[in-house]
Amino acid sequence: MLRVVSVIGDSETKDPEELKFAEKLGEELAKRGYVILTGGRGGIMEAVCRGAKKMNGLTIAILPSTTKEEANPYVDVAIPTGLMWARNQIVALGGDIIIAIGGRSGTLSEIAYAWMYNKPIIAVSRFGGWAEKLAGGKIDDRRRDIIYKADSIDRIIKIVENMLKKTINQ
Amino acid sequence: MLRVVSVIGDSETKDPEELKFAEKLGEELAKRGYVILTGGRGGIMEAVCRGAKKMNGLTIAILPSTTKEEANPYVDVAIPTGLMWARNQIVALGGDIIIAIGGRSGTLSEIAYAWMYNKPIIAVSRFGGWAEKLAGGKIDDRRRDIIYKADSIDRIIKIVENMLKKTINQ
Amino acid sequence: MLRVVSVIGDSETKDPEELKFAEKLGEELAKRGYVILTGGRGGIMEAVCRGAKKMNGLTIAILPSTTKEEANPYVDVAIPTGLMWARNQIVALGGDIIIAIGGRSGTLSEIAYAWMYNKPIIAVSRFGGWAEKLAGGKIDDRRRDIIYKADSIDRIIKIVENMLKKTINQ
Amino acid sequence: MLRVVSVIGDSETKDPEELKFAEKLGEELAKRGYVILTGGRGGIMEAVCRGAKKMNGLTIAILPSTTKEEANPYVDVAIPTGLMWARNQIVALGGDIIIAIGGRSGTLSEIAYAWMYNKPIIAVSRFGGWAEKLAGGKIDDRRRDIIYKADSIDRIIKIVENMLKKTINQ
Repeated sequence: MLRVVSVIGDSETKDPEELKFAEKLGEELAKRGYVILTGGRGGIMEAVCRGAKKMNGLTIAILPSTTKEEANPYVDVAIPTGLMWARNQIVALGGDIIIAIGGRSGTLSEIAYAWMYNKPIIAVSRFGGWAEKLAGGKIDDRRRDIIYKADSIDRIIKIVENMLKKTINQ
Repeated sequence: MLRVVSVIGDSETKDPEELKFAEKLGEELAKRGYVILTGGRGGIMEAVCRGAKKMNGLTIAILPSTTKEEANPYVDVAIPTGLMWARNQIVALGGDIIIAIGGRSGTLSEIAYAWMYNKPIIAVSRFGGWAEKLAGGKIDDRRRDIIYKADSIDRIIKIVENMLKKTINQ
Repeated sequence: MLRVVSVIGDSETKDPEELKFAEKLGEELAKRGYVILTGGRGGIMEAVCRGAKKMNGLTIAILPSTTKEEANPYVDVAIPTGLMWARNQIVALGGDIIIAIGGRSGTLSEIAYAWMYNKPIIAVSRFGGWAEKLAGGKIDDRRRDIIYKADSIDRIIKIVENMLKKTINQ
Repeated sequence: MLRVVSVIGDSETKDPEELKFAEKLGEELAKRGYVILTGGRGGIMEAVCRGAKKMNGLTIAILPSTTKEEANPYVDVAIPTGLMWARNQIVALGGDIIIAIGGRSGTLSEIAYAWMYNKPIIAVSRFGGWAEKLAGGKIDDRRRDIIYKADSIDRIIKIVENMLKKTINQ
């Protein structure tokens, strides 16, 4: 089975630094053979997919509506769900690890789901949003671990590699 | 159509003050003819349903699993969804207004949904949890209003009555 | 807990006999204290709700979209799900018994769900559609019972009363 | 974007001919670059994935529960949904074309969804089940086309190729 990393963040962000960060993250993850799972739309989701495709990675999108047309141009496999934002549960469940960048209410719900379903979470402590707000903290007392805080791609990759232990079978 | 108030909060809280508050809130809402919608489980959900039933109110539960046995004893109509925590989207969508008390990750996801779906939200600024943390603030810049902050049942009822304008047709 | 009967059927049927049948069924169920659960839209769903309201029954709607405006005028409690036709799972799970009248692909999916979730099913052997096609038969070999066949309201009520054993606590 | 074919059928079938057919179908689809989407469990789903992996195809699973452990050993990317059988909507929506082999109530619900969402459907007219029962027919009058009937893999591939017009970009 392939290792899957879910990347979550704002579909409308225009911050060039944040988008560049997401794109570079997509490259680095794809280079290491991780499948990229996102909500398939614009902003962070598009940037991370674009990066992954530069490295010939595989990108899968879990879309809210019933049509594939909603997917960004860097999505390989578009999976419409027809569930609206309830699809956020699936974005969280599909990842072996979840990485949050910036983020508004949608991202917040995905972090909450990742926490409820006991998924390791890395939050980027740059670019503001819910990721920065929650980085290094906990959502509640249900888990003993925390949301990992990372301010660089190197740091993210180190945590991912450590968590997923090179068990990639690609 | 009946007016529906969704009440969300921790299924495991044992704080007697918080539970008493929820029960009293259920009474006051039911007295005014509001249908109580919850996630149907224990803690805050059970307390608010218990209060509502004291006043002969109607309580509806949107359950995560596929069986009605999960509902607390004060639920009139149990609706299993089989969606796990994706059912939180429905708890938010079903309410004409959402009231949050305390709350952990599940409550947080429901507040995020209520925000995304443009529902009025009241958060109780007592008893800690995500309700207190978010009371008076915003989840993101998508909406112009805020999460109403209330520290008493009187205040909650005033906001509810004002928001829903007595259009109850029961 | 109140006893809930889910009634499923075509949202667009115009057959006056079929609609009259559904309305009369709503009356008879409501008279006996059963809550009526439907998908909340037009056709059969509207007719059965109209009948139930004549007898002051309680009607609950599980809607596919994110807005309550979709509900027919005889719905007391509208619960939008935002799940599109995946909401059909909930219509099946919410009923203690499922009654199918006529019906096209949506009704077929609800019958399939009712079967998978082991719910008693009554199909009306009039008015054509999937209800008539499946009445008296089985969906697969997973269950030992069959889909009850009924061609009159009397017969339906007898099966419902027998299945749900007067355990109504309203 | 990659072309996706959803293959649906019974998770428990033991018929060696039927399983061999599904495996061979997986091979032929994968050879042509189609991504295989299934519900990820045993029986037909496992057989088609096994065939696809022989040809180095890509297999994606939309699982009902919240854990990846449920996936069969030939799944590359496991996506748990936590939606129980409501996940059947996603299996239908994710495919550009749906192929049904045999099948019981779960398969029936997926065919109903594929029909509602206007997806081309091919049903195998061998091995019984709902696929054979519905092959060559219609679910209702909503669509002008029919469920394509095929009794050989050659025939299926011809229909798929014709429908999806070689727009594969792998």
